[in-house]
Amino acid sequence: MTSPTPQDLDALIDIVGEKGLMQADHGDGSGGDDLVPYETCVRYGAGKAAFVVRPANSQETSRVLAYCYGRGITLVPQSGNSGLVGASTPDSSGMQGVLSFDRLLETQGADASSHKQIIFDEENRSVTVGAGVRLSDLNAFLEPKGYVFPIDLGADPRIGGMIATNTGGARFLRYGDVRQNTLGVKVVLADETGTELDFMSGLRKDNTGIDWKHLFIGTTGVLGVVTEAVLNVVRLPQQSTAALLVPRDEAAVLKLLLEMEERCDSNLTAFEGMSAEAIRAAFDHVPSLRNPFPGGDIPDYVLLVELSRTWAKRDSEQSLDELMEVVLAEIWEDEEAPLENAFIGRPEEMWALRHALSEGVKHAGKLVAFDVSFRRGDLMKFRSFMAQELPEKFPNVRICDFGHVGDGGLHFNLSIPQDDPRLNDAAFIPSLREWVVKMVVEQYNGSFSAEHAIGRSNQEFYDSYTPNKVKELAAQIKDVLSPGDLGDVKLG
Amino acid sequence: MTSPTPQDLDALIDIVGEKGLMQADHGDGSGGDDLVPYETCVRYGAGKAAFVVRPANSQETSRVLAYCYGRGITLVPQSGNSGLVGASTPDSSGMQGVLSFDRLLETQGADASSHKQIIFDEENRSVTVGAGVRLSDLNAFLEPKGYVFPIDLGADPRIGGMIATNTGGARFLRYGDVRQNTLGVKVVLADETGTELDFMSGLRKDNTGIDWKHLFIGTTGVLGVVTEAVLNVVRLPQQSTAALLVPRDEAAVLKLLLEMEERCDSNLTAFEGMSAEAIRAAFDHVPSLRNPFPGGDIPDYVLLVELSRTWAKRDSEQSLDELMEVVLAEIWEDEEAPLENAFIGRPEEMWALRHALSEGVKHAGKLVAFDVSFRRGDLMKFRSFMAQELPEKFPNVRICDFGHVGDGGLHFNLSIPQDDPRLNDAAFIPSLREWVVKMVVEQYNGSFSAEHAIGRSNQEFYDSYTPNKVKELAAQIKDVLSPGDLGDVKLG
Repeated sequence: MTSPTPQDLDALIDIVGEKGLMQADHGDGSGGDDLVPYETCVRYGAGKAAFVVRPANSQETSRVLAYCYGRGITLVPQSGNSGLVGASTPDSSGMQGVLSFDRLLETQGADASSHKQIIFDEENRSVTVGAGVRLSDLNAFLEPKGYVFPIDLGADPRIGGMIATNTGGARFLRYGDVRQNTLGVKVVLADETGTELDFMSGLRKDNTGIDWKHLFIGTTGVLGVVTEAVLNVVRLPQQSTAALLVPRDEAAVLKLLLEMEERCDSNLTAFEGMSAEAIRAAFDHVPSLRNPFPGGDIPDYVLLVELSRTWAKRDSEQSLDELMEVVLAEIWEDEEAPLENAFIGRPEEMWALRHALSEGVKHAGKLVAFDVSFRRGDLMKFRSFMAQELPEKFPNVRICDFGHVGDGGLHFNLSIPQDDPRLNDAAFIPSLREWVVKMVVEQYNGSFSAEHAIGRSNQEFYDSYTPNKVKELAAQIKDVLSPGDLGDVKLG
Repeated sequence: MTSPTPQDLDALIDIVGEKGLMQADHGDGSGGDDLVPYETCVRYGAGKAAFVVRPANSQETSRVLAYCYGRGITLVPQSGNSGLVGASTPDSSGMQGVLSFDRLLETQGADASSHKQIIFDEENRSVTVGAGVRLSDLNAFLEPKGYVFPIDLGADPRIGGMIATNTGGARFLRYGDVRQNTLGVKVVLADETGTELDFMSGLRKDNTGIDWKHLFIGTTGVLGVVTEAVLNVVRLPQQSTAALLVPRDEAAVLKLLLEMEERCDSNLTAFEGMSAEAIRAAFDHVPSLRNPFPGGDIPDYVLLVELSRTWAKRDSEQSLDELMEVVLAEIWEDEEAPLENAFIGRPEEMWALRHALSEGVKHAGKLVAFDVSFRRGDLMKFRSFMAQELPEKFPNVRICDFGHVGDGGLHFNLSIPQDDPRLNDAAFIPSLREWVVKMVVEQYNGSFSAEHAIGRSNQEFYDSYTPNKVKELAAQIKDVLSPGDLGDVKLG
C-alpha cells in the first residue's frame, strides 16, 4: 500500500476535475472538505481517508483505477455507505482513498452520445442506471409509471452497493434478491488499464459463455467496480393486504409457510417473523406505533404475512382481504391447526411495526447483530436451540431477533444492558460473536452472512469457514480480474 | 490431446469398475459395447469415442478427471445428450473419451453414509439430486408430493446438462431459468487431483464471497463437471387455463404482453409466440392435432397465453377461465385494442400444438435453426426485418419461427426445400447462418445462444462476437479452475 502524494492528488484532479476530488486539506493548508461522512459507516468504527475521489462515469472510473493501480494506491469503493459489515470505509492508516459513487449517476444512452440518469425500457421491463443512483430515487422515477424495483429495504442504499452486497430484503420470497433482478452490469477492473467490461445487453436469456455479472454481484466490489447496471423492474402492486399470525408453536411456523405458499401462490409477497423482544423494543423506541394485540399483550412470536397483486380489484372478484380470510379459515378448520390467533389489519401499520424493529433493537441496549441464514426448516430450530443454550453460555443477553422466515434469513440480534460490566472486557463481544457464528455454521449448516456480504466485521468468519482450496481459487480469480486493491476484504 | 492406451482403459476400470467403462471393443478383440448412442447427438454430426466412462458418484468422477488430466486425455461431459449445439459428443478423432452421466444418479445423504437418488426437503422447497437424474424422473418423484421442478421443455434432459446449458423453456416468464432454480452444486474440476468443490448448502440467501455455482451454470461443463445439485422446486399448479390470442398487428404483441402482465400478475405463466408456418408444419406432421381456428384458417401469428395457480378453485372465487375472459374483455374494450381474436380452450390441446412445433419444423424441409434472444421489445422487430430482408438475400427460404415472447427468446427456424439445389453447395448454409447471426447480434443487440449454450455448432459465433479481452479473461479463469480438457468448447 502506498500513501498518496500531492502529485497523485493532482493527477486524480486531472481525471475527475476539482469537484471530483475531496481532500482533508487542499494540499496547501487552506482547510479542506469534510470527509467524515465518507470515513464513518453505519455500524462499525471510523477510519481515515487520504482522499475521496468521485468519478462521474465509467470512463473516469477507469482512469482513476488505472492510475491508482499504477501507483499502488488502495481504493475503497463506497456506494450509499449504508452497509452493515464495515466494507465501505477506509482503515485508520490514512493511506487509503475512498472511491465514492456519489456522482456515478448517469448511464450511456443507446445512441452513445446522450448520457441520461435512468433509461426506462418498458417493453423489456428494465431500467439502465448509474451505480450511484439511490434506491429511493429509482423508485420515485418508476412509481408514476406503475413500476418498482422490487427490493424492499429499511435503508436507502445506492444501486452499486446493492449489487456489491446482493441485497435481499423483505419481499425476497416473491421477487428474489438483487442478483435475480440484475440483467447486466458495466464493470471497471483494478488493473493496468482500468479495463471496462460492458455486459449491458439487458437480455433475459443469454448463454454465450461465462455469465460474468455473477462474479461482481455480492463480492463487495473486490473483483471490480460496477459503474452501471440494467435492472429488472416489476409492476407496482395495486392491491395488498397483510395479517399478523400467531403460530401455535415453533414447529407451526414452517407449516404455516407451506400452507400459505400452497393456498396463495405468488400472491404471498412476504412472510416475516418477529420476536416479542424485538416488537417490544420497537414499541419502546417508537411510541407512535399502534399496538395491534388485544390488551397490548405481545405474543412470543408473530408472523407478518402479506398478499399483493398488480391489478386493481375488479367488481367481479374477491378482494385480497377476502382471500386472506378464506385462507386463514381453511387453515383453522384443521384440528391441528398451526394457527393460534390472527389479526387482519392495515398493511401500512403492520409494515410500520416491521420496519421499526431494526431501529428499536438498536436502542434496547448494546446491540450485537448477526445476519445469518438457514435452510428454511432450520431457522426456527436454531432459535429454539439459542433460547436454551445462550442463557447458559452467556447469561443476561436478550435475543430480539426478526427475519425473513420465507427465505431462511434471520436477523439474529442480541442485546446486552448498557451498564453490563462485561462490556468493559474487550474479549466479551468477540467471544459471543464467535460462539454464535460457530453454532450457525457448524451446528445448523447456515451462513454467517445472508444478505450483508463480506466486510471487515466478518472477514474473520470468511477466513475460518471458507475451505482453503476455495480461498486459493478465489485469490487466483481476484488476480485474473482485478490485481489492484479494492477495499480491505481478502477473498484469498 | 493423447490417445488412450489399453493401460489407460484398465486404470479407468480400476476406478469405475467393469460396468462403468464402455469400449468399442474390449481391448482383446472380443467385440464390445454399442457406443453409437454416445457418439451421436440430436442435431449435429456424429463423432467417434475412444471410450465411454460412467462414474457412479462424485468421488469416482474426481478420480477419473484426475487420471485423465495426468494423462492428457480429453473428456467430453455428456448428460442426457439432448443438447442442440453439438457440445456433448466426441470429435471424429477417436481419441476423446465420453464422460457419461448415465450412472450419476445418487447423492450423498445428510448423514454422509446413505446415498439416495433424490432427497426432498419440503420445508426448504428443495431437492438434492445426482446430475444424471432425468427431468421426467425428478418430476415423477415430485408430482405425487404436489411439487414440480418448473423448467418446462419438450426434451427430457438430465439435470447436469440442464445446468451446463442453463435451460430456459416455456415458463421462464414465471419461474426463471435453471440458474434461478439452482440453489447449490457439487463440482469436480479437471485438475491434478480432480478437486471436488461442495457448494451444496441449499441456502436461499448466502453472500459469503464468490457465488461459485454461477461459473458452472451455462458454461457447458468446460469449467468443471457438476455431479450433484440442490434445486428449488415449486408447488404444482392445481388450476390452469390457456388461450390463443391473435394480435392485431406486430406492435400489438408487446402491448398484449404488458397488458397481460399487469392484469394477471404472476398468474401469467406463459406467453409464447407461434408463426403460421410453424403451426402449419405441426399440423402437417402431427395429423392428430386439432385445428382450433375457425374454418381452419391459421392466423399469421398466434400467442399462447397460460394462467395458472397452485390452489384448487374455491367456491367463493372466480375460476381462471373467468379471469381470462374478464381480462380479455377489458383489453378488448379499448378502441385501439391490440387484439384481433381470441380462443379460450383446453390447455392440453393448446400445449400439444405448441410442443409439436419443434417436431413439425424438423420435417418441413431442411431445417436451419437459431436459438436467439433479444430485449423483449426487439423480438417482433427482428421478425419483421427478417420477413422483409431474408427473401432478398436468400430467396425461397421459409421462416417458421416460434418462441418465448415473454422473455425475448426466439427459436428462429428457417426451412429450405429438401430438393433445393443450393443444398449441394457446402457454403450455402454456413453463409445463411453467418448472415442471420450477424443481424441478430449487430443489428438487434441480441444473443446468438439464448438457452442452448455453446457447442461446436456455435463456437464460431462465440469467437467472432466475444470481445478479445473477455476471451482472454475466460481463458485465464478456465486455467484457474479446470486446466484439463473438458469437451471441445474453447472460451479463450
